[in-house]
Amino acid sequence: MADPRFFQRAGPFLLQRLAECGDAKLANPADGARRIADVQSLEAAGPEDIAYAEGKRVAPLLAACRAGAVLLPPDLVTAAPPGCAILSSATPALAFARIAGLFYAEPAVEPGIHPSATVAADAKLGADVSIAPGAVIGGGAEIGAGTRIGPHAVIEAGVVIGRDGRIGAHCSISHAVIGDRILLAPGVSIGQPGFGLVAGPEGLLRRPQLGRVVIGNDVEIGANSAIDRGAAGDTVISDGCKIDNLVHIGHNVRLGRSCIIAGQVGMSGSCVLGDYAQLGGQVGLSDHVTLGRDTRVMAQSGVLRDVEPGGAVGGTPAVPIRQHHRQVAILARLAKRKGD
Amino acid sequence: MADPRFFQRAGPFLLQRLAECGDAKLANPADGARRIADVQSLEAAGPEDIAYAEGKRVAPLLAACRAGAVLLPPDLVTAAPPGCAILSSATPALAFARIAGLFYAEPAVEPGIHPSATVAADAKLGADVSIAPGAVIGGGAEIGAGTRIGPHAVIEAGVVIGRDGRIGAHCSISHAVIGDRILLAPGVSIGQPGFGLVAGPEGLLRRPQLGRVVIGNDVEIGANSAIDRGAAGDTVISDGCKIDNLVHIGHNVRLGRSCIIAGQVGMSGSCVLGDYAQLGGQVGLSDHVTLGRDTRVMAQSGVLRDVEPGGAVGGTPAVPIRQHHRQVAILARLAKRKGD
Amino acid sequence: MADPRFFQRAGPFLLQRLAECGDAKLANPADGARRIADVQSLEAAGPEDIAYAEGKRVAPLLAACRAGAVLLPPDLVTAAPPGCAILSSATPALAFARIAGLFYAEPAVEPGIHPSATVAADAKLGADVSIAPGAVIGGGAEIGAGTRIGPHAVIEAGVVIGRDGRIGAHCSISHAVIGDRILLAPGVSIGQPGFGLVAGPEGLLRRPQLGRVVIGNDVEIGANSAIDRGAAGDTVISDGCKIDNLVHIGHNVRLGRSCIIAGQVGMSGSCVLGDYAQLGGQVGLSDHVTLGRDTRVMAQSGVLRDVEPGGAVGGTPAVPIRQHHRQVAILARLAKRKGD
Repeated sequence: MADPRFFQRAGPFLLQRLAECGDAKLANPADGARRIADVQSLEAAGPEDIAYAEGKRVAPLLAACRAGAVLLPPDLVTAAPPGCAILSSATPALAFARIAGLFYAEPAVEPGIHPSATVAADAKLGADVSIAPGAVIGGGAEIGAGTRIGPHAVIEAGVVIGRDGRIGAHCSISHAVIGDRILLAPGVSIGQPGFGLVAGPEGLLRRPQLGRVVIGNDVEIGANSAIDRGAAGDTVISDGCKIDNLVHIGHNVRLGRSCIIAGQVGMSGSCVLGDYAQLGGQVGLSDHVTLGRDTRVMAQSGVLRDVEPGGAVGGTPAVPIRQHHRQVAILARLAKRKGD
Repeated sequence: MADPRFFQRAGPFLLQRLAECGDAKLANPADGARRIADVQSLEAAGPEDIAYAEGKRVAPLLAACRAGAVLLPPDLVTAAPPGCAILSSATPALAFARIAGLFYAEPAVEPGIHPSATVAADAKLGADVSIAPGAVIGGGAEIGAGTRIGPHAVIEAGVVIGRDGRIGAHCSISHAVIGDRILLAPGVSIGQPGFGLVAGPEGLLRRPQLGRVVIGNDVEIGANSAIDRGAAGDTVISDGCKIDNLVHIGHNVRLGRSCIIAGQVGMSGSCVLGDYAQLGGQVGLSDHVTLGRDTRVMAQSGVLRDVEPGGAVGGTPAVPIRQHHRQVAILARLAKRKGD
Repeated sequence: MADPRFFQRAGPFLLQRLAECGDAKLANPADGARRIADVQSLEAAGPEDIAYAEGKRVAPLLAACRAGAVLLPPDLVTAAPPGCAILSSATPALAFARIAGLFYAEPAVEPGIHPSATVAADAKLGADVSIAPGAVIGGGAEIGAGTRIGPHAVIEAGVVIGRDGRIGAHCSISHAVIGDRILLAPGVSIGQPGFGLVAGPEGLLRRPQLGRVVIGNDVEIGANSAIDRGAAGDTVISDGCKIDNLVHIGHNVRLGRSCIIAGQVGMSGSCVLGDYAQLGGQVGLSDHVTLGRDTRVMAQSGVLRDVEPGGAVGGTPAVPIRQHHRQVAILARLAKRKGD
């Protein structure tokens, strides 16, 4: 499936092993002895590949599939073609992700400090850290065991990063305390002063920005995103948050656990997101907006007011999603009445 | 208040000194001899801290506050609890910002050129410049006295930067002439060719981009923002402009003095902004739009036409703000009439 | 025209030579012996400069112009002032771009590897490549002849880049195969894993992202843009695409030939754009949206559904452009009826 210039494949594996890895059940236990060499999409899979399928519409594709094995939800197992080994799972996509991770493990970090890196004498490096060419580690910074600092990444003085993290090329981190297994794509900027201005007689003055960025465990942040430090108190990204590319997070924003933030979202200062909140791409939040737990915000919406837990909103200014759909529909109808 | 891993605190100071620093007036001159050790938020301040308060709604918080001293506008001085020293100021936020700056001064620049930097032989470096690890300074570039070039920042040939600037990590600057006290967060890109295309028989051709970026004094630009150089003539950012993260400024845009540009704003080619214009987050401007002095644009608006001085607009396409609010209201009402 | 600190000018040239370069016709062949020293705008041009004009509205400017020579479409040649040599062209802007390119050629690349670069022993470098300070070239990467890798750019293992490319400072490229004459502004990030998440019992899991980014010839990408690699299969940017600053392109997006993508556009996963599609600034596309050949999308629109070839859409959710304009008009009218 994957270009060997970029990905190393393990295996082949017996199907039994894959079933265990994906916590899936073999429809016919005798198939457990089949050898599977790769993961593939349903369309492209051949007799040595495993694929997965979900949803009613996939039935025709599934019927035509030539995969050696396929992961299916219980209601689809009868739609698989003969000769294709079936692994039944309530969550085939999750099972497939785990099996793909078995074939294509993340490359191991090669411990060591590249001679072109600049590491302060009093930086504290855990066991087996990897410091790539040109990386800069400031005074008193702490890098946890097994973490990789990418090429030219800059970790300013005092920053703390936990274990097994991956800091991409050209990331810049200051004024931050970060948990374990952080994953930063290239170009992420964390900890710069927030956009807090006061008008004075000689022009605009920036208030001293005296807070930090505090990031939990298992957080992922996409390329060229920017997270400002707090003005007073901290900007907080809680455990398990996943943030896409080019996202802007202002000072003193607080994200609960496992929030999903799509690309190019912008959050003004002091917004609060409850656990599991999900923001679509290009959403904007006014400052001091609070979104309750499990909030959903449609892409491109502009949220000016707080949203209750479990609320779903859309549009600019954002309104409850059903109202938004009605507004869209009524406007379309009015325009048609007048139209050609 | 601030984590000592990242911030160095001066003081303590006598309250009299803080009153002078913030140009505020002690309600009781005898309090001038109190010692104050830190700045804090109103909620968190203790007997050795100074805080500030503004606005009617803050009265209950203020009544409960335990701060040693508090900066207040004249109409709030009676709301402060007994035992709390009062500094009266017409602009408490500004006074607080100045006092915070006394406790937490920007760290001084350590002059010198890191051995891993690459500095052209004919670059002109002022007194006490600081060139961080990996920085690259091209031929003929001029760096003013006291300016710090951050880690891996790239200053291309011929670029001029004034005094006492701070260029963040991974900034890239070409074709630019920049004033004093510039503050660039990490990852800012200045001077790349603009997006000026001409269709030709073999496909799209980029017109040669022969202008520069000219930036005044006291300008601040947020992380990962991008400012294109002019196509013919210059892109201009005047004195005192404050620009947030991830902002896109196209070729030949001209910003007047002290404009405030919030995060993720995008300006197409040849826009003109008068002095003190303010754009909310994620605003977009069509090319060749002119916004008069003191214009206000609501967040997420899309401006297709010129705006008169002092105008306030909102929505996409942007209309005068009162009309925008009416449009929002009438659409909501129409949708409700039909709704459940 | 251009600041000599940043641009080197060739010439002067005889007008005859410029006419050939721009494929334009001298109205009076005797003017071919005039010497022209520079390109200029119509307003600023003097007797030694060449300028160009297009469009009806330019007539007054043209009448007052002092240029030595001017490129004009046939319908404007009678509007030029006496004494100004006329070059007639059906495409004056294109002719001017070519002539400007003659005066101001892109600076030649100085071949060689800077001693501070880190180049893997098994990287394959073509003839006359230029590797700037701090650049990092990973194992097995291939850099075509005449390509320049900018300061601190990071080319990860296995990446292939064609001939005569220009990779800006701080670019980061992994999992990618790139054609000839690529032009990347600074800070572009290509090949990071896409935002494909699966919910699992311990939280959100990222599906292994096993595809690549495949980029054709003559592609240009603006500063700080981010292009994710495919999840399974590739993200594809076809020949001649021009992409502006701060654009986000998700996993498995496929762009046809010569698409024009303005600043801050965001494309969710698996979008497909036909040849010559054009997206205005800050447009957002939902995942799996297909835009036909020659589609036009207005700035700031949000496209939720497929668009037919040649379609033009606007608004959020995007509708056909005429309907969008009617919707805007009717809403304005309704608001006025109620208003002051």
